[in-house]
Amino acid sequence: MSFHIPQGFLFSTRTAGIKASGRPDLALALAPEGASAAAMFTTNQVAAAPVVTGRDHLRKSKGRISALIVNAGNANCATGQHGLRAAKTVCAETAKVLGTKSDRIFPSSTGIIGVPLPVEKILTALPDLIAGAQASPEALDAFATAIMTTDTRKKIAAEELVFKKQPIRMVGVAKGAGMIHPNMATMLVYIFTDVAASPRDLQRSLKNAVEQSFNNISIDGDTSTNDTALLMSSGKSGVAFKSVSKAFESALTGICQSLSQQIIADGEGVKHVVTLKIEQARNSDDARKIASCIANSPLVKTAWAGSDPNWGRMLAAIGYSGIKVQPERISIYLGEQQICRNGAAASFDKKQAHEYMKQPAYEIRIKLGQGKQKLDFLSCDLTAEYVHINADYST
Amino acid sequence: MSFHIPQGFLFSTRTAGIKASGRPDLALALAPEGASAAAMFTTNQVAAAPVVTGRDHLRKSKGRISALIVNAGNANCATGQHGLRAAKTVCAETAKVLGTKSDRIFPSSTGIIGVPLPVEKILTALPDLIAGAQASPEALDAFATAIMTTDTRKKIAAEELVFKKQPIRMVGVAKGAGMIHPNMATMLVYIFTDVAASPRDLQRSLKNAVEQSFNNISIDGDTSTNDTALLMSSGKSGVAFKSVSKAFESALTGICQSLSQQIIADGEGVKHVVTLKIEQARNSDDARKIASCIANSPLVKTAWAGSDPNWGRMLAAIGYSGIKVQPERISIYLGEQQICRNGAAASFDKKQAHEYMKQPAYEIRIKLGQGKQKLDFLSCDLTAEYVHINADYST
Repeated sequence: MSFHIPQGFLFSTRTAGIKASGRPDLALALAPEGASAAAMFTTNQVAAAPVVTGRDHLRKSKGRISALIVNAGNANCATGQHGLRAAKTVCAETAKVLGTKSDRIFPSSTGIIGVPLPVEKILTALPDLIAGAQASPEALDAFATAIMTTDTRKKIAAEELVFKKQPIRMVGVAKGAGMIHPNMATMLVYIFTDVAASPRDLQRSLKNAVEQSFNNISIDGDTSTNDTALLMSSGKSGVAFKSVSKAFESALTGICQSLSQQIIADGEGVKHVVTLKIEQARNSDDARKIASCIANSPLVKTAWAGSDPNWGRMLAAIGYSGIKVQPERISIYLGEQQICRNGAAASFDKKQAHEYMKQPAYEIRIKLGQGKQKLDFLSCDLTAEYVHINADYST
Repeated sequence: MSFHIPQGFLFSTRTAGIKASGRPDLALALAPEGASAAAMFTTNQVAAAPVVTGRDHLRKSKGRISALIVNAGNANCATGQHGLRAAKTVCAETAKVLGTKSDRIFPSSTGIIGVPLPVEKILTALPDLIAGAQASPEALDAFATAIMTTDTRKKIAAEELVFKKQPIRMVGVAKGAGMIHPNMATMLVYIFTDVAASPRDLQRSLKNAVEQSFNNISIDGDTSTNDTALLMSSGKSGVAFKSVSKAFESALTGICQSLSQQIIADGEGVKHVVTLKIEQARNSDDARKIASCIANSPLVKTAWAGSDPNWGRMLAAIGYSGIKVQPERISIYLGEQQICRNGAAASFDKKQAHEYMKQPAYEIRIKLGQGKQKLDFLSCDLTAEYVHINADYST
């Protein structure tokens, strides 16, 4: 894809030797004159050291960040006091080279849990990493590649606004794959823009965008320890946030939705991406809970893997969602074809339904008959390949 | 196994032609002089017609049942008004042949959801089914076999008490396999005894026994629409419940625990049965919620499939259980070997851990460091075979 780098950011990557594959595993985003920043984190109580440190640094710096440093291959999670010291050391050394304060550095890690972070490897690579920073799409591309773990594809999305002929640029990168779930499980998302915004403006926009994107996706229902979505703005476009706030938020949501789709499509072992279109719910919380229950049911997900129009398993998952429903009002559609009417079998063409479900991406529409709220939720099937990938990850 | 049939019960099976395999799929338990009965049902809001009907009949008959009739191969669920009429018809016709009232018949169904129950096939087989009822272990054995769906083994457990030289017999049968979860998902359990008990005595004992057995197991986290546990007592031993209440409840719990183990061991595609021994929890609800989160995590279950001592995934699952925990107090053991100490890696022999996890059944002990409550929870791994079985079930 073709895109412009937002003004005020440089990117760099190096191989520190953390990934067993020997691929680049250290990535830097530099805002030489600083950037406003806002972030959202995992809700898992077992929060990784970089999550604890990143949250702390955003608070201490009042949302002003000079650099983001990410390592892949090691999550620095469940590593106790050593892990916290490791995250602090990486930030302190980065700050020293940049001539800024430690709390201006935002750390991120992804990879295996419970193994001490090899700090020395990172520190050794650091001077080169910082010296090599560039403001080019190629550098951002390399950044998106370096943060990958079990991902098979890099994930990038970009948008551009124009205000009085002045372009405002926005570009986002993400890594995901397994363990993706509402409340953003093992997912790292970084979005860079050159609008002139306060950390508070960014926080509000980010929260709204995440609510309409990353919180409506699920691969396997596991919520990770390291999830982070970070939004940084350099202000270098010279355009004030308030001049473009609506358009900005819409573009940001677009980026988050595009990255969500890319993450699901690259889910571990995923053969089918399924958009659950929940309709006639009482409210969006109900709709999300019901969609999530369907999306996390192993029986539903394996039926999807087999392109099997087994609406009974979906109905059963709705029944144990904890949300009060009237089964006799529920209808389910595969595209245009109705497969469940009023909680019972609709007469439908099984072969056509089977063919429909063989597509790599398709929609299942569920009418609850309770209200007017709609919600789109992205999910995927559970395949034997998922099992193989995850049975053999750490050993 | 060798066991005696409780007095006052006869059993029979026939092939009605509901199972595609052509195997016996209709089973009857007859109490010619009636029996006290108590039952527990699924909590899924999408309750199958036989669950609705069975609950209704127990209420109308004030807990007095003459016969239990079970079909396998069709769940009679999500079948609308037709399904309710079908369940009522089967009971009415059974009652007619037996010369009793319709509400003395308890119906049960298991199998595919959303397909109309072939009532005619059942009615055709009914006279022979009733005429062939016998009070023999072989007949009960055939009963346990006829109710199987994806089960690969029949499940039977028996206990015997003696009070003043009078034996009190108790025997239970179950079917399970996939979709097993707390609140008893797609599981049928029938327990027959000849103690002299009121429906109320039975209900209390059954609730306590289920709480310590079927509510502490999980295969895939899906909660089914048809789950039923039924306890029937003929009173034919002549021994009053109050003379043996403690011993009776203990024996009943033993039967339920044995059937639980048999169900888990026969879970779809299961290669490893894992007993989660939760210790130092604040209370049993907390312990059950945490165990359930670990037991339902696809990442944990696939690690178990690979005999991978990945304690980080278990710690992460504890972290998103919704129960307040202090990760730095949590320790995890594989048998005698500690693999996680205070929320971080313990130094352990990986090869030994891997060998330990290759066993078909083993224990994982988790100390939460919060209180004194213990709970054992039975679970299993998630294998590629589970995916294959469930991707191809209905088509």
